[in-house]
Amino acid sequence: MVKAIFEPDGRRVEARAKESLLKIAQQVGITIRSECGGKGTCGKCRLQVSPKQSVTPPTSVEKEHLTVKEMKMGYRLACQALVTGDLDVQLMVPRESRITKRRLQIEGITNPVTLRPVVHAVQVSVPPVDPTHPVADDERLIEGLRKRIGGKRGSWVIPMWVTRRIPEIIRESLGQVTVTLWDKRTVIDVNAGDTREDLFGVALDIGTSKLVASLHSLVTGNLLAVAGLENPQIRHGEDIMSRLSFAAKDPTNRAVLQNLILDSINLLLARLAQEATISLDHIYELVVVGNTVMTSLFLGLDTKYLGYGPFTAPARGYLNVSSDILNLSLPPQANVHVLPCIAGYVGADAVADILATGLHRRKRMSLLIDIGTNSEVVLGNREELTACSCAAGPAFEGAQIEHGMKAVSGAIERVSIHPDSMEVEVETVDNKPPIGICGSGVVDAVAQLAEVGLLTPHGRFTDYPTSRLLQDERGKRFILFERRDGERESTITLSEHDVSQLLLAKAAIQTGYRLVLDHHHLSPADLDRVFIAGAFGNYLNPASARVIGLIPRVPSNRVTFVGNAALAGARLALLSRTHRSQAIRLAKTTHFLDLARHPDFNQTYTSSLFLPKETEE
Amino acid sequence: MVKAIFEPDGRRVEARAKESLLKIAQQVGITIRSECGGKGTCGKCRLQVSPKQSVTPPTSVEKEHLTVKEMKMGYRLACQALVTGDLDVQLMVPRESRITKRRLQIEGITNPVTLRPVVHAVQVSVPPVDPTHPVADDERLIEGLRKRIGGKRGSWVIPMWVTRRIPEIIRESLGQVTVTLWDKRTVIDVNAGDTREDLFGVALDIGTSKLVASLHSLVTGNLLAVAGLENPQIRHGEDIMSRLSFAAKDPTNRAVLQNLILDSINLLLARLAQEATISLDHIYELVVVGNTVMTSLFLGLDTKYLGYGPFTAPARGYLNVSSDILNLSLPPQANVHVLPCIAGYVGADAVADILATGLHRRKRMSLLIDIGTNSEVVLGNREELTACSCAAGPAFEGAQIEHGMKAVSGAIERVSIHPDSMEVEVETVDNKPPIGICGSGVVDAVAQLAEVGLLTPHGRFTDYPTSRLLQDERGKRFILFERRDGERESTITLSEHDVSQLLLAKAAIQTGYRLVLDHHHLSPADLDRVFIAGAFGNYLNPASARVIGLIPRVPSNRVTFVGNAALAGARLALLSRTHRSQAIRLAKTTHFLDLARHPDFNQTYTSSLFLPKETEE
Repeated sequence: MVKAIFEPDGRRVEARAKESLLKIAQQVGITIRSECGGKGTCGKCRLQVSPKQSVTPPTSVEKEHLTVKEMKMGYRLACQALVTGDLDVQLMVPRESRITKRRLQIEGITNPVTLRPVVHAVQVSVPPVDPTHPVADDERLIEGLRKRIGGKRGSWVIPMWVTRRIPEIIRESLGQVTVTLWDKRTVIDVNAGDTREDLFGVALDIGTSKLVASLHSLVTGNLLAVAGLENPQIRHGEDIMSRLSFAAKDPTNRAVLQNLILDSINLLLARLAQEATISLDHIYELVVVGNTVMTSLFLGLDTKYLGYGPFTAPARGYLNVSSDILNLSLPPQANVHVLPCIAGYVGADAVADILATGLHRRKRMSLLIDIGTNSEVVLGNREELTACSCAAGPAFEGAQIEHGMKAVSGAIERVSIHPDSMEVEVETVDNKPPIGICGSGVVDAVAQLAEVGLLTPHGRFTDYPTSRLLQDERGKRFILFERRDGERESTITLSEHDVSQLLLAKAAIQTGYRLVLDHHHLSPADLDRVFIAGAFGNYLNPASARVIGLIPRVPSNRVTFVGNAALAGARLALLSRTHRSQAIRLAKTTHFLDLARHPDFNQTYTSSLFLPKETEE
Repeated sequence: MVKAIFEPDGRRVEARAKESLLKIAQQVGITIRSECGGKGTCGKCRLQVSPKQSVTPPTSVEKEHLTVKEMKMGYRLACQALVTGDLDVQLMVPRESRITKRRLQIEGITNPVTLRPVVHAVQVSVPPVDPTHPVADDERLIEGLRKRIGGKRGSWVIPMWVTRRIPEIIRESLGQVTVTLWDKRTVIDVNAGDTREDLFGVALDIGTSKLVASLHSLVTGNLLAVAGLENPQIRHGEDIMSRLSFAAKDPTNRAVLQNLILDSINLLLARLAQEATISLDHIYELVVVGNTVMTSLFLGLDTKYLGYGPFTAPARGYLNVSSDILNLSLPPQANVHVLPCIAGYVGADAVADILATGLHRRKRMSLLIDIGTNSEVVLGNREELTACSCAAGPAFEGAQIEHGMKAVSGAIERVSIHPDSMEVEVETVDNKPPIGICGSGVVDAVAQLAEVGLLTPHGRFTDYPTSRLLQDERGKRFILFERRDGERESTITLSEHDVSQLLLAKAAIQTGYRLVLDHHHLSPADLDRVFIAGAFGNYLNPASARVIGLIPRVPSNRVTFVGNAALAGARLALLSRTHRSQAIRLAKTTHFLDLARHPDFNQTYTSSLFLPKETEE
């Protein structure tokens, strides 16, 4: 038995060796186009598979329907490829093979931004060769650049990959070329004719549990496509500590983790380019954010000393690397820019969160909570900022919850329980029949159970008599949804174990915001605004979040949901060099609060494990 | 039948499939240590083989005598490895397997130089982590650098490869590290402890026929080792035009030529490091010279338009590339610096020739002739310089001459013929029994034959009655040496065809210097000095060279032999940034004389095909 993860929904199932991908998908209710019913004649059930060795080699039927290039990119027919049973398999259902579309919950707030990208393109006329004085091709290109934008001849750098292209391009175009420049002086591409519009960039947030990327035009700033994937490193540990210890176990493991993430980024990039119908060859910059562990593993840095105190980052970041060093499927000279980290695990994602919410420009005190497997909390204003990181674990992503799932079609995202009848009403994503419960649904359910008196402050079910409470060998559980549909029966429950998983996760975050507030001698009432970031944040019921203590007790009108603020911040740094230099300043000046060394950590954490009383805080 | 080339002597032989390397070597008189006589028990007959597939896979006997690392580096036992017969094979006889040593004729003139290398190393104390404020490892290294040499925090660039090493090194060394800097601001290496002495650089001349490299300490400037190899591209053409057309024939051929040269450079680098007993990991810079075709192929540039008029170079050069892009076996961040070219085929080697001879600093007019398969001629003084290139072909290297060979032990390098008796006296390299004739010997022989009246100005043998002149089905030939030694008979002759090969080669060079002199309205008498460069130059008899017209008619005391001046110039650029910037200026200001377009080219070339009369010029 191996694990199969279906993207973009992130549905995980156990799969048996020799089972076809189509059959595995059908068993868990994932609908893949298949007009011939799995006979291999329609060629519609296309999937992208990673790693390729996790399934049997392509059959002759597949070679008829797929091009060599597609097979190189991992495309297979779901009815033909069988799981080998040796390796876990990650499957991407491409748009053309999907029947329902997933809910897009991955964009962050979009701030207006004055476009000042680091990459720009200019049209250049390359002077022809004077046969009596044949000047080298690269020098003629520079001469053309000098005439077009001024400056000395020695001002430009042309990296090797570009130099190799110059002779062909300047002749094919009869000297009329478009030169792509990075930071004004590095020639990162040359193309024939006027291709100034073909200038794109990608913002990428590497989360502990998922990757989200957005594609933008660097000419208009427009958002062209968004795509997300599970973080494939999950197979080596749900949280950052277990990935760090996996990396430390064997010298090759760090490369294993790096390659997993690079392969997935290449999948994302291909998907973005496909959706926007642009060429990968015109994506010239990738701005990356993530916590310190994620960005360090992405860059292949030595993470050995990041796993124990004082949790020193191998590099502060603000790194510019050319894409060829990372084997990304971008032009070799495309620039990969990693935003700087603050300290410890408070990484480039926290810097991006600040950029996106403008915390550093506000006069009054604001609190930012970025909810994720690794969560960040930032408090402050334009005078002073303090940040810490909290190991919440993946409960909010639906993992470690028995019927948990991501917020895709059919996930319960809202729960209300009638205080007298104990009748339950649920709302699901896309109003589809319920098939599981996502993070915001669990928060709602726990808050409602507490409010109607079915849960003690310790997260135990009370003895209140209701048929919705079951007791079996695994303990007590509450029935959220039940249906009998002919032969098929479906029951979605929330167990005491699920409740304790949620309380552990919220305790980590609550400890974080309580200690940063203490550090500034502030109480929740002093907060002008509370920003809630994170993929699941937008669908969170703020009242429920307050009830369980996931966010401090402030009036609802002071709470703002900002979605994936880390991605939004990365986008700002992609589109504007002003924001990029701002990020460097923020990384240096934001104070790092090390919770692991905080004298009040244990006491605060222990008291945060409970559901707060109404009067508290 | 395939070709086998034995290095460092450059002896080429035809080899039959299934023959052992030891047997092939013995057939052509190359002596390889073999104490057991080829039984595989002594393990002494070690050779380096390239490419590995040109011989049968290692036997169990070899696996006993060679380490895995050695086998990876191409080491084999000559008695065990058999030629497959599919591929030509290049063989390096390492020093420990040789019985005689070859004559080292590969050093150039050594000018005193004030050491100002671009690479330097400093000792740095990295501040320890402050647990209350854990600063990232790379930032602490920069902090240490700042304390040591001043400057702003943002002044240094740390490339990815180095960043990956930092965490381990700074801890292992307890913060006491040596930082290697390129151009003051790029951190290209970090090592534990004080390793400031481990700072080396290599100068490399990529000739059309051979590669020569020298290893230097960048701390003392001392020469530590010199090594040479045949240019393995020879299998795809003896001269640059045939290599360019091979490269143009198929898109993959350019990579074939590039990889051949890169593999050989890696062999040379390993050899240099071995001879000087240093580690390849401490060679931080490689300065490369060569004609435009050689440096372009080395860098993998597009040579398509270099093959026909107006012979435009893909890049002027002055390129700094990190070694990882070229897959050289140096540290990934080691810098490869290619000196700039002038124009057409007048490349970085000509610039290096000028640097080494100081032509650009002399008040009076000097002429420089760099004799090689592709020869360069430069004329001028500190006011003005003019350069051209001449396609001499490989005759001076001993190729295309029936009994030709390189100037190694046993090669005839001096010939004198008694004008009455026609008795011949020969001198050989190392005074060994003659086995062939090298370039300087051929020049001597032709000049002597002309002087005693055995050759007409057209290079035909006269009818003078002497038993030394033979006539067979291949035409007339002159016996230079004859010996009967028991069973074995050895005769070394010079044929009319050999003479015409030499005259073609000298005509190319003579045309070059005559046209540059014309261009400046000068005659040989106006020349203050004539510099003769090139590997074979040092052993040339200037009187003979004058007789045949290879050099202009100037008094012998105005002729200076400067050996491999291109390598000497590369060495200057390696050791001194003053010379490096001088090279950029020289490449820009030296006038390029395009012989192919010169109106007098045909007439001058035709008249240069003859042996000059005494009164001429």
